Amino acid sequence: MRETARLFAGHTGLGDPSAWEPPAPFSPSLLPAPRLPAPAFCTADPFERAVRTYGQAYRDLIRAYRGDFANAPDLVALPRDEDEIVRVLEWAADRGVAVVPRGGGTSVVGGVEARFDGPSVCLDLGRMNRVLEVDPVSGAALVEAGATGPVLNAGLPEGLQLRFFPQSYELSTLGGWIATRAGGHFATLHTHIDDLVESIRAITPAGGVWESRRLPGSGAGPSPDRWLLGSEGALGVITRAWVRVQRRPAYKASVPVMFAEWRAGVAAVHDLAQSGLYPSNCRLLDAREAALTSGGDGRHALLIVGFESAGHPVGAWVARALEITSRHGGVAGEARQDKEWKGAFTRMPYLRNAYPGLGVIAETFETAVTWDRFPALHEAVMAEADGSATCRLAFAYPDGPAPYYTVLVPAVRGAEAEQWDELKRRFSETVLRMGGTITHHHAVGRDHRPFYDRQRPDAFALALRAAKDALDPRGILNPGVLI
Amino acid sequence: MRETARLFAGHTGLGDPSAWEPPAPFSPSLLPAPRLPAPAFCTADPFERAVRTYGQAYRDLIRAYRGDFANAPDLVALPRDEDEIVRVLEWAADRGVAVVPRGGGTSVVGGVEARFDGPSVCLDLGRMNRVLEVDPVSGAALVEAGATGPVLNAGLPEGLQLRFFPQSYELSTLGGWIATRAGGHFATLHTHIDDLVESIRAITPAGGVWESRRLPGSGAGPSPDRWLLGSEGALGVITRAWVRVQRRPAYKASVPVMFAEWRAGVAAVHDLAQSGLYPSNCRLLDAREAALTSGGDGRHALLIVGFESAGHPVGAWVARALEITSRHGGVAGEARQDKEWKGAFTRMPYLRNAYPGLGVIAETFETAVTWDRFPALHEAVMAEADGSATCRLAFAYPDGPAPYYTVLVPAVRGAEAEQWDELKRRFSETVLRMGGTITHHHAVGRDHRPFYDRQRPDAFALALRAAKDALDPRGILNPGVLI
Repeated sequence: MRETARLFAGHTGLGDPSAWEPPAPFSPSLLPAPRLPAPAFCTADPFERAVRTYGQAYRDLIRAYRGDFANAPDLVALPRDEDEIVRVLEWAADRGVAVVPRGGGTSVVGGVEARFDGPSVCLDLGRMNRVLEVDPVSGAALVEAGATGPVLNAGLPEGLQLRFFPQSYELSTLGGWIATRAGGHFATLHTHIDDLVESIRAITPAGGVWESRRLPGSGAGPSPDRWLLGSEGALGVITRAWVRVQRRPAYKASVPVMFAEWRAGVAAVHDLAQSGLYPSNCRLLDAREAALTSGGDGRHALLIVGFESAGHPVGAWVARALEITSRHGGVAGEARQDKEWKGAFTRMPYLRNAYPGLGVIAETFETAVTWDRFPALHEAVMAEADGSATCRLAFAYPDGPAPYYTVLVPAVRGAEAEQWDELKRRFSETVLRMGGTITHHHAVGRDHRPFYDRQRPDAFALALRAAKDALDPRGILNPGVLI
Repeated sequence: MRETARLFAGHTGLGDPSAWEPPAPFSPSLLPAPRLPAPAFCTADPFERAVRTYGQAYRDLIRAYRGDFANAPDLVALPRDEDEIVRVLEWAADRGVAVVPRGGGTSVVGGVEARFDGPSVCLDLGRMNRVLEVDPVSGAALVEAGATGPVLNAGLPEGLQLRFFPQSYELSTLGGWIATRAGGHFATLHTHIDDLVESIRAITPAGGVWESRRLPGSGAGPSPDRWLLGSEGALGVITRAWVRVQRRPAYKASVPVMFAEWRAGVAAVHDLAQSGLYPSNCRLLDAREAALTSGGDGRHALLIVGFESAGHPVGAWVARALEITSRHGGVAGEARQDKEWKGAFTRMPYLRNAYPGLGVIAETFETAVTWDRFPALHEAVMAEADGSATCRLAFAYPDGPAPYYTVLVPAVRGAEAEQWDELKRRFSETVLRMGGTITHHHAVGRDHRPFYDRQRPDAFALALRAAKDALDPRGILNPGVLI
């Protein structure tokens, strides 16, 4: 990790590798004593509790790094099946113990931290990770909620894949994706897991099993699946889902396009998003971000535009996309087979582990906003960041982009969490004020709650609270998120 | 209408034009007396009440034809703005009077009929039909709920369109589309209005205004819009929405492809649906339906596959689609500019007005089901129909089709409503049993309620009821639908 830090500092000029701070050594004594005895189906082991205390926000990393495990769950349950989940929920409801469902623990918004009063159980779905059934005719698979991306795809028959690649792919789970409305790698069309879910099954404390019918489409009342998508563990414990899988793409092409001006790149993405071409990749990096992550020259914005298909060559699509980008002054590089993006893309987040030791604070946040408002939002965020931010357009909808910002600033040793909170507050205010959503795919969790409360319609909050009270009358499920 | 009936009878052999039964002449005395006096903002005019008694199901037509207006609303309100809606809701809540929101009145599932005990007001949104604002940069427009398809599109700037064409296009309204999750004409991708809505505004009895932020995409909790989509007037009165509009297509092509076997056509649609080509049209008619509606030869199934684009020629897409259809033995006809489908498509439903006089019962129903289950479902429906049904695949998803069935049988004069109820019950049972949804785009209303109740997850029903109780504690909004 120190070597990574040295490389990073040399590349960015941020942080001082010679002032490297090692992590606090782990000791069971760092954890508060459990506030209740463990039943047979839970463990109170300090290590098991410690590794499930946090998600993966910088705010989480720095606290773990310093040995702060004050919010560790009192107990950890690792159910093997739904019966064991029911047992945990009944036990917890009887005692008013909070239950925090956990998948891969990659939340960057405090979604899996027991940041509330009173005892809690971490309900880790990690052992429920099987592919239970495959329907190759429809292109669908029934998968348990605890399956990570690699485990899920390895469980499918040769040639089939769930084409969903969030940056947390290696660690995050199907249940987590659904609970947080996670975003994958694809820039258009099926951007969120929402679009790839055919049916969801969940266990609720008071309502029993919630299982929707497998359907390719429906108009029968409000979609039950859409009530669980984004429910962040507050309405029920998602146990399995039917997801839409596809044949692996046989044809892929991806072209880098350089723009002298960021704005010209944005205009090209705008055009592409409304073209009906639906590129699988359409990612615009500003000049600094391109230099930092993709070997850019530091002066040009870089657009990666790509297409893929299981059935047909994508040349016609690429050619049409490049006609559009050239209209905006884009200079296309050589088309690539682009086999390697996934590795680089999913390895990137591990870099964050070096930040605490190096004395660098990293905050990444994202939003989505309509095209008419994007220029002003972008300007406001960059002004607020005062040189510390880089930007990429990660998703492109016909009516607006989803920009992703990375902010890197020197840490004030010992005050990092407060520093981070202040960054989060300032940028969240800016995003809300300028018409964006508080999150496009990172979820609400506890960090975005105050801002989410201002964004959502009040009447909807009333309805959501009533639904929650009906399903979880004791309020044991992930208290503090959403409601 | 008698001439239409004669042509229809000659074409199908169904009905006896010589036994033509004229409609009962309208008289105000056909309507029951209003059970409460009209406040200043309502009318009790018999004609206004009569034309708002029913939707457009055959069951509705036959009753109106015979002069049965037993379920007429007691009063009709025609608000001009949200303040007037609030006034109606407050007045109704104080008195426990039911309020049935109404758009174009084209429900074919009893969604707008006061089929319950106690007095009711029909809240007709027809006067609130303006385009309030257009954002040409993002491609979005803010439109009042009462706008019909033609009025909405006429209100947009030249060159922009809401590409949403349900068969009821000329009469149905934006608010009705949202409340019922209506399906348009496009066979893939953006099939439902759900996909074209950017933000929704509604008035709720107890929760005040429900308005979501305009966003191209979001991951902030469960989507508020998805709670109103399909809410069928039971959670709030939808008053306006931002919808995604597009440039009118400059390039269109559509090709008829003939298949000697229905199954081969189905296999071609299956392949096309999973091809990633996303044709705008991909409609397969069985041989009898093709003969009835599209000049087919009565022996071949007919697939219409089409593409459209505002920006680029669609030749490459068409060519690839025809490679796929020919693999399944499809014989392609000549490509057409296909300017006329919309007229013929939206005129078709008017034919229904001739059925009551002619003594023909028509029931159209639709579903969606995964590909693995479709062959068995189709076989079961056709067996149940015993020669009286034709089928088209109206929508094609990667994981399954949405078939649409038309059943025509001779009426038993005087017992048509019961006959229709029995048809509805039998086919609904078959659809549910075989794994389909009770509706893909016709909504639940009152006719599908018993089947919907069996389809939806119980825990979801609990949550939906709680949400309804919170927003509408007096239960005045469209009683009997959904919950």
